[in-house]
Amino acid sequence: MCRNRQSGDFMIIMGIDPGIAISGYGVVCCNGTEFEVLDFGVLKTESSLSVPERLKAIYEGYLNLIENYKPAAIAVEELFFNKNAKTAIAVGQARGVALLAAASRNVKVYEYTPLQVKQAVVGYGRAEKMQVQEMVRVLLNLKTIPKPDDAADALAVALCHINSLNLQRYITTECRF
Amino acid sequence: MCRNRQSGDFMIIMGIDPGIAISGYGVVCCNGTEFEVLDFGVLKTESSLSVPERLKAIYEGYLNLIENYKPAAIAVEELFFNKNAKTAIAVGQARGVALLAAASRNVKVYEYTPLQVKQAVVGYGRAEKMQVQEMVRVLLNLKTIPKPDDAADALAVALCHINSLNLQRYITTECRF
Repeated sequence: MCRNRQSGDFMIIMGIDPGIAISGYGVVCCNGTEFEVLDFGVLKTESSLSVPERLKAIYEGYLNLIENYKPAAIAVEELFFNKNAKTAIAVGQARGVALLAAASRNVKVYEYTPLQVKQAVVGYGRAEKMQVQEMVRVLLNLKTIPKPDDAADALAVALCHINSLNLQRYITTECRF
Repeated sequence: MCRNRQSGDFMIIMGIDPGIAISGYGVVCCNGTEFEVLDFGVLKTESSLSVPERLKAIYEGYLNLIENYKPAAIAVEELFFNKNAKTAIAVGQARGVALLAAASRNVKVYEYTPLQVKQAVVGYGRAEKMQVQEMVRVLLNLKTIPKPDDAADALAVALCHINSLNLQRYITTECRF
Protein backbone atom coordinates (compact mmCIF):
# COMPACT_ATOMS: atom_id res chain seq x y z
CA MET A 1 0.00 0.00 0.00
CA CYS A 2 0.97 3.59 -0.55
CA ARG A 3 0.89 4.35 3.15
CA ASN A 4 3.86 2.12 3.61
CA ARG A 5 6.21 4.09 1.45
CA GLN A 6 9.16 1.96 2.47
CA SER A 7 8.09 -0.92 0.29
CA GLY A 8 7.41 -1.33 -3.39
CA ASP A 9 7.21 1.11 -6.24
CA PHE A 10 4.92 4.05 -5.87
CA MET A 11 4.39 7.40 -7.47
CA ILE A 12 3.03 10.49 -5.76
CA ILE A 13 1.11 13.03 -7.82
CA MET A 14 -0.07 16.37 -6.49
CA GLY A 15 -2.98 18.18 -8.10
CA ILE A 16 -3.31 21.90 -7.43
CA ASP A 17 -6.00 24.53 -7.95
CA PRO A 18 -4.38 27.86 -7.06
CA GLY A 19 -6.32 31.02 -6.22
CA ILE A 20 -5.52 34.18 -4.30
CA ALA A 21 -7.95 33.49 -1.41
CA ILE A 22 -8.20 29.69 -1.52
CA SER A 23 -5.74 27.31 -3.17
CA GLY A 24 -6.67 23.65 -3.38
CA TYR A 25 -4.33 20.68 -3.26
CA GLY A 26 -4.75 16.94 -3.47
CA VAL A 27 -2.00 14.37 -3.04
CA VAL A 28 -2.56 10.94 -4.55
CA CYS A 29 -0.22 7.98 -4.37
CA CYS A 30 -0.35 5.13 -6.84
CA ASN A 31 1.39 1.84 -6.31
CA GLY A 32 0.88 -1.04 -8.68
CA THR A 33 -2.80 -1.27 -9.40
CA GLU A 34 -3.77 0.64 -6.25
CA PHE A 35 -4.02 4.30 -5.58
CA GLU A 36 -5.11 6.33 -2.62
CA VAL A 37 -5.35 9.82 -1.24
CA LEU A 38 -2.51 10.87 1.02
CA ASP A 39 -3.85 14.35 1.70
CA PHE A 40 -6.13 17.03 0.39
CA GLY A 41 -7.23 20.45 1.53
CA VAL A 42 -6.83 24.16 0.91
CA LEU A 43 -4.38 26.95 1.66
CA LYS A 44 -6.24 30.08 2.70
CA THR A 45 -4.90 33.61 2.75
CA GLU A 46 -6.33 36.48 4.76
CA SER A 47 -7.86 39.31 2.77
CA SER A 48 -6.31 41.72 5.29
CA LEU A 49 -2.86 40.89 3.86
CA SER A 50 -1.39 42.70 0.86
CA VAL A 51 -1.38 40.81 -2.44
CA PRO A 52 2.41 40.21 -2.32
CA GLU A 53 2.05 38.83 1.23
CA ARG A 54 -0.79 36.54 0.13
CA LEU A 55 1.31 35.31 -2.80
CA LYS A 56 4.16 34.61 -0.38
CA ALA A 57 1.82 32.57 1.83
CA ILE A 58 0.61 30.55 -1.19
CA TYR A 59 4.17 29.99 -2.40
CA GLU A 60 5.34 28.83 1.02
CA GLY A 61 2.26 26.65 1.47
CA TYR A 62 2.87 24.80 -1.77
CA LEU A 63 6.60 24.56 -1.01
CA ASN A 64 5.78 22.88 2.32
CA LEU A 65 3.48 20.40 0.60
CA ILE A 66 6.11 19.61 -2.02
CA GLU A 67 8.76 19.10 0.64
CA ASN A 68 6.43 16.96 2.72
CA TYR A 69 5.13 14.67 -0.03
CA LYS A 70 7.89 14.94 -2.64
CA PRO A 71 5.51 14.49 -5.59
CA ALA A 72 6.93 13.10 -8.84
CA ALA A 73 4.72 15.54 -10.74
CA ILE A 74 2.25 18.35 -10.21
CA ALA A 75 -0.93 18.58 -12.27
CA VAL A 76 -2.89 21.79 -12.78
CA GLU A 77 -5.93 22.70 -14.80
CA GLU A 78 -5.52 25.14 -17.67
CA LEU A 79 -7.50 28.27 -17.09
CA PHE A 80 -10.07 29.71 -19.42
CA PHE A 81 -11.75 32.99 -18.77
CA ASN A 82 -14.33 34.48 -21.06
CA LYS A 83 -14.95 37.72 -19.35
CA ASN A 84 -13.50 38.92 -16.06
CA ALA A 85 -9.90 39.84 -16.92
CA LYS A 86 -9.33 41.26 -13.43
CA THR A 87 -10.07 37.81 -11.98
CA ALA A 88 -7.83 36.26 -14.63
CA ILE A 89 -4.91 38.40 -13.47
CA ALA A 90 -5.53 37.63 -9.78
CA VAL A 91 -5.75 33.89 -10.45
CA GLY A 92 -2.76 34.14 -12.81
CA GLN A 93 -0.67 35.68 -10.03
CA ALA A 94 -1.54 32.88 -7.59
CA ARG A 95 -0.92 30.30 -10.30
CA GLY A 96 2.45 31.89 -11.07
CA VAL A 97 3.77 31.41 -7.55
CA ALA A 98 2.40 27.84 -7.41
CA LEU A 99 4.23 26.96 -10.65
CA LEU A 100 7.34 28.67 -9.27
CA ALA A 101 7.17 26.49 -6.14
CA ALA A 102 7.18 23.42 -8.41
CA ALA A 103 10.06 24.74 -10.55
CA SER A 104 12.12 25.70 -7.51
CA ARG A 105 12.01 22.07 -6.33
CA ASN A 106 12.46 20.62 -9.84
CA VAL A 107 8.99 19.08 -9.92
CA LYS A 108 7.59 18.88 -13.44
CA VAL A 109 4.21 20.50 -14.05
CA TYR A 110 1.54 19.07 -16.36
CA GLU A 111 -1.45 21.06 -17.54
CA TYR A 112 -4.83 19.66 -18.51
CA THR A 113 -7.87 21.33 -19.97
CA PRO A 114 -11.18 21.11 -18.07
CA LEU A 115 -12.35 18.81 -20.89
CA GLN A 116 -9.45 16.42 -20.32
CA VAL A 117 -10.10 16.36 -16.56
CA LYS A 118 -13.78 15.56 -17.03
CA GLN A 119 -13.07 12.90 -19.64
CA ALA A 120 -10.44 11.28 -17.43
CA VAL A 121 -12.53 11.27 -14.25
CA VAL A 122 -16.09 10.84 -15.53
CA GLY A 123 -15.47 9.60 -19.05
CA TYR A 124 -17.54 12.43 -20.45
CA GLY A 125 -16.16 15.88 -21.34
CA ARG A 126 -19.36 17.76 -20.58
CA ALA A 127 -19.89 16.28 -17.14
CA GLU A 128 -21.34 18.51 -14.43
CA LYS A 129 -19.21 19.63 -11.48
CA MET A 130 -21.16 17.34 -9.11
CA GLN A 131 -20.56 14.32 -11.34
CA VAL A 132 -16.83 15.01 -11.32
CA GLN A 133 -16.81 15.34 -7.53
CA GLU A 134 -18.80 12.14 -7.06
CA MET A 135 -16.41 10.23 -9.34
CA VAL A 136 -13.43 11.63 -7.41
CA ARG A 137 -15.06 10.26 -4.24
CA VAL A 138 -15.70 6.84 -5.82
CA LEU A 139 -12.29 6.50 -7.51
CA LEU A 140 -10.45 7.46 -4.34
CA ASN A 141 -12.66 5.33 -2.13
CA LEU A 142 -13.69 8.24 0.10
CA LYS A 143 -16.81 8.19 2.28
CA THR A 144 -17.86 11.71 1.34
CA ILE A 145 -17.14 14.16 -1.46
CA PRO A 146 -13.91 16.04 -0.65
CA LYS A 147 -14.56 19.60 0.50
CA PRO A 148 -14.17 22.42 -0.34
CA ASP A 149 -14.55 22.43 -4.13
CA ASP A 150 -10.96 23.62 -4.59
CA ALA A 151 -9.65 20.46 -2.91
CA ALA A 152 -11.95 18.23 -4.98
CA ASP A 153 -10.82 20.03 -8.16
CA ALA A 154 -7.17 19.49 -7.20
CA LEU A 155 -7.80 15.76 -6.65
CA ALA A 156 -9.60 15.56 -10.01
CA VAL A 157 -6.67 16.98 -11.94
CA ALA A 158 -4.28 14.68 -10.04
CA LEU A 159 -6.42 11.71 -11.14
CA CYS A 160 -6.41 13.06 -14.69
CA HIS A 161 -2.62 13.07 -14.69
CA ILE A 162 -2.45 9.52 -13.34
CA ASN A 163 -4.89 8.44 -16.03
CA SER A 164 -2.89 10.24 -18.68
CA LEU A 165 0.32 8.54 -17.55
CA ASN A 166 -1.45 5.22 -17.71
CA LEU A 167 -2.86 5.88 -21.16
CA GLN A 168 0.51 6.88 -22.41
CA ARG A 169 1.87 3.62 -21.08
CA TYR A 170 4.59 5.40 -19.19
CA ILE A 171 3.68 3.56 -16.04
CA THR A 172 1.37 0.86 -17.34
CA THR A 173 2.73 -1.70 -14.96
CA GLU A 174 2.50 0.57 -11.97
CA CYS A 175 -0.70 2.49 -12.04
CA ARG A 176 -4.04 1.62 -13.59
CA PHE A 177 -7.68 2.45 -13.30
CA MET B 1 24.59 62.66 -5.72
CA CYS B 2 22.93 59.28 -5.68
CA ARG B 3 25.97 57.58 -7.15
CA ASN B 4 27.82 58.26 -3.95
CA ARG B 5 25.54 56.27 -1.74
CA GLN B 6 27.84 56.70 1.21
CA SER B 7 26.76 60.28 1.80
CA GLY B 8 23.45 61.97 2.48
CA ASP B 9 19.92 60.71 2.47
CA PHE B 10 18.70 58.90 -0.57
CA MET B 11 15.86 56.64 -1.52
CA ILE B 12 15.97 53.97 -4.19
CA ILE B 13 12.77 53.08 -6.03
CA MET B 14 12.46 50.23 -8.50
CA GLY B 15 9.78 50.24 -11.17
CA ILE B 16 8.89 46.91 -12.77
CA ASP B 17 6.91 45.79 -15.80
CA PRO B 18 6.74 41.99 -15.62
CA GLY B 19 5.91 39.74 -18.56
CA ILE B 20 6.59 36.10 -19.36
CA ALA B 21 9.02 36.79 -22.26
CA ILE B 22 10.33 40.25 -21.34
CA SER B 23 10.21 41.86 -17.89
CA GLY B 24 11.24 45.49 -17.57
CA TYR B 25 12.93 47.15 -14.63
CA GLY B 26 14.10 50.65 -13.83
CA VAL B 27 16.00 51.72 -10.72
CA VAL B 28 15.84 55.38 -9.75
CA CYS B 29 17.58 57.02 -6.83
CA CYS B 30 16.41 60.28 -5.35
CA ASN B 31 18.46 62.35 -2.97
CA GLY B 32 17.30 65.75 -1.86
CA THR B 33 16.05 67.56 -4.91
CA GLU B 34 17.99 65.38 -7.31
CA PHE B 35 17.18 62.06 -8.81
CA GLU B 36 18.89 59.84 -11.31
CA VAL B 37 18.75 56.47 -12.98
CA LEU B 38 20.91 53.78 -11.42
CA ASP B 39 19.94 51.06 -13.86
CA PHE B 40 17.30 49.97 -16.32
CA GLY B 41 16.80 47.06 -18.66
CA VAL B 42 14.89 43.85 -19.20
CA LEU B 43 14.95 40.25 -18.05
CA LYS B 44 14.35 37.92 -20.99
CA THR B 45 13.29 34.29 -20.82
CA GLU B 46 13.74 31.76 -23.58
CA SER B 47 10.56 30.45 -25.18
CA SER B 48 12.20 27.00 -25.27
CA LEU B 49 11.87 26.81 -21.47
CA SER B 50 8.73 25.54 -19.75
CA VAL B 51 6.47 28.16 -18.15
CA PRO B 52 7.52 27.18 -14.59
CA GLU B 53 11.20 27.49 -15.60
CA ARG B 54 10.56 30.90 -17.17
CA LEU B 55 8.77 32.03 -14.00
CA LYS B 56 11.76 30.84 -11.95
CA ALA B 57 14.12 32.88 -14.16
CA ILE B 58 11.93 35.99 -13.72
CA TYR B 59 11.72 35.47 -9.96
CA GLU B 60 15.47 35.03 -9.62
CA GLY B 61 16.16 37.99 -11.92
CA TYR B 62 14.04 40.33 -9.79
CA LEU B 63 15.51 38.87 -6.59
CA ASN B 64 19.02 39.68 -7.88
CA LEU B 65 18.00 43.25 -8.70
CA ILE B 66 16.42 43.70 -5.26
CA GLU B 67 19.51 42.33 -3.54
CA ASN B 68 21.78 44.50 -5.67
CA TYR B 69 19.92 47.82 -5.32
CA LYS B 70 17.99 47.28 -2.08
CA PRO B 71 15.05 49.46 -3.18
CA ALA B 72 12.92 51.09 -0.49
CA ALA B 73 9.84 50.34 -2.60
CA ILE B 74 8.77 48.67 -5.83
CA ALA B 75 6.24 50.31 -8.13
CA VAL B 76 4.18 48.41 -10.68
CA GLU B 77 1.43 49.37 -13.08
CA GLU B 78 -2.03 47.92 -12.53
CA LEU B 79 -3.08 45.77 -15.42
CA PHE B 80 -6.21 46.16 -17.44
CA PHE B 81 -7.20 43.77 -20.15
CA ASN B 82 -10.30 44.13 -22.21
CA LYS B 83 -10.14 41.00 -24.25
CA ASN B 84 -7.35 38.46 -24.31
CA ALA B 85 -7.80 36.52 -21.06
CA LYS B 86 -5.09 34.04 -22.05
CA THR B 87 -2.59 36.91 -22.16
CA ALA B 88 -3.98 38.18 -18.85
CA ILE B 89 -3.21 34.85 -17.18
CA ALA B 90 0.30 34.67 -18.69
CA VAL B 91 1.10 38.23 -17.58
CA GLY B 92 -0.57 37.56 -14.21
CA GLN B 93 1.73 34.59 -13.64
CA ALA B 94 4.85 36.67 -14.36
CA ARG B 95 3.50 39.48 -12.20
CA GLY B 96 2.83 37.02 -9.38
CA VAL B 97 6.44 35.89 -9.13
CA ALA B 98 7.69 39.50 -9.37
CA LEU B 99 5.45 40.52 -6.45
CA LEU B 100 6.62 37.41 -4.57
CA ALA B 101 10.25 38.48 -5.05
CA ALA B 102 9.37 41.82 -3.42
CA ALA B 103 7.47 40.18 -0.55
CA SER B 104 10.23 37.65 0.08
CA ARG B 105 12.68 40.52 0.68
CA ASN B 106 10.16 42.65 2.61
CA VAL B 107 10.01 45.35 -0.05
CA LYS B 108 6.65 47.10 -0.15
CA VAL B 109 4.84 47.17 -3.50
CA TYR B 110 2.81 50.13 -4.77
CA GLU B 111 0.42 49.88 -7.68
CA TYR B 112 -0.55 52.69 -10.03
CA THR B 113 -3.08 52.82 -12.81
CA PRO B 114 -1.90 53.74 -16.34
CA LEU B 115 -3.78 57.03 -15.84
CA GLN B 116 -1.81 57.82 -12.68
CA VAL B 117 1.49 57.04 -14.42
CA LYS B 118 0.68 59.30 -17.38
CA GLN B 119 -0.52 62.10 -15.13
CA ALA B 120 2.59 61.89 -12.98
CA VAL B 121 5.08 61.75 -15.84
CA VAL B 122 3.42 63.88 -18.53
CA GLY B 123 0.81 65.76 -16.50
CA TYR B 124 -1.92 64.49 -18.78
CA GLY B 125 -3.76 61.19 -18.28
CA ARG B 126 -4.41 60.56 -21.96
CA ALA B 127 -0.83 61.06 -23.08
CA GLU B 128 0.50 58.87 -25.88
CA LYS B 129 3.14 56.23 -25.21
CA MET B 130 5.79 58.27 -27.05
CA GLN B 131 5.04 61.34 -24.92
CA VAL B 132 5.50 59.29 -21.74
CA GLN B 133 8.79 57.87 -23.01
CA GLU B 134 10.07 61.32 -24.01
CA MET B 135 9.20 62.73 -20.58
CA VAL B 136 10.96 59.80 -18.90
CA ARG B 137 14.05 60.71 -20.94
CA VAL B 138 13.82 64.40 -20.02
CA LEU B 139 13.06 63.89 -16.32
CA LEU B 140 15.90 61.40 -15.93
CA ASN B 141 18.31 63.49 -17.99
CA LEU B 142 19.02 60.69 -20.46
CA LYS B 143 20.41 61.29 -23.94
CA THR B 144 18.03 58.88 -25.63
CA ILE B 145 14.69 57.27 -24.84
CA PRO B 146 15.29 54.15 -22.72
CA LYS B 147 14.85 50.95 -24.72
CA PRO B 148 13.08 48.57 -24.94
CA ASP B 149 9.58 49.82 -24.11
CA ASP B 150 9.36 47.53 -21.08
CA ALA B 151 12.34 49.29 -19.48
CA ALA B 152 10.89 52.73 -20.26
CA ASP B 153 7.55 51.66 -18.77
CA ALA B 154 9.30 50.45 -15.62
CA LEU B 155 11.11 53.79 -15.25
CA ALA B 156 7.82 55.65 -15.78
CA VAL B 157 6.07 53.82 -12.94
CA ALA B 158 9.12 54.37 -10.69
CA LEU B 159 8.87 58.12 -11.41
CA CYS B 160 5.14 57.96 -10.70
CA HIS B 161 5.83 56.48 -7.27
CA ILE B 162 8.46 59.14 -6.48
CA ASN B 163 5.98 61.82 -7.55
CA SER B 164 3.27 60.24 -5.44
CA LEU B 165 5.53 60.18 -2.39
CA ASN B 166 6.34 63.81 -2.98
CA LEU B 167 2.70 64.79 -3.39
CA GLN B 168 1.80 62.97 -0.24
CA ARG B 169 4.51 64.95 1.56
CA TYR B 170 5.95 61.77 2.95
CA ILE B 171 9.37 62.79 1.76
CA THR B 172 8.82 66.45 0.88
CA THR B 173 12.22 67.47 2.11
CA GLU B 174 13.99 64.67 0.34
CA CYS B 175 12.63 64.25 -3.13
CA ARG B 176 10.96 66.73 -5.42
CA PHE B 177 10.26 67.32 -9.04
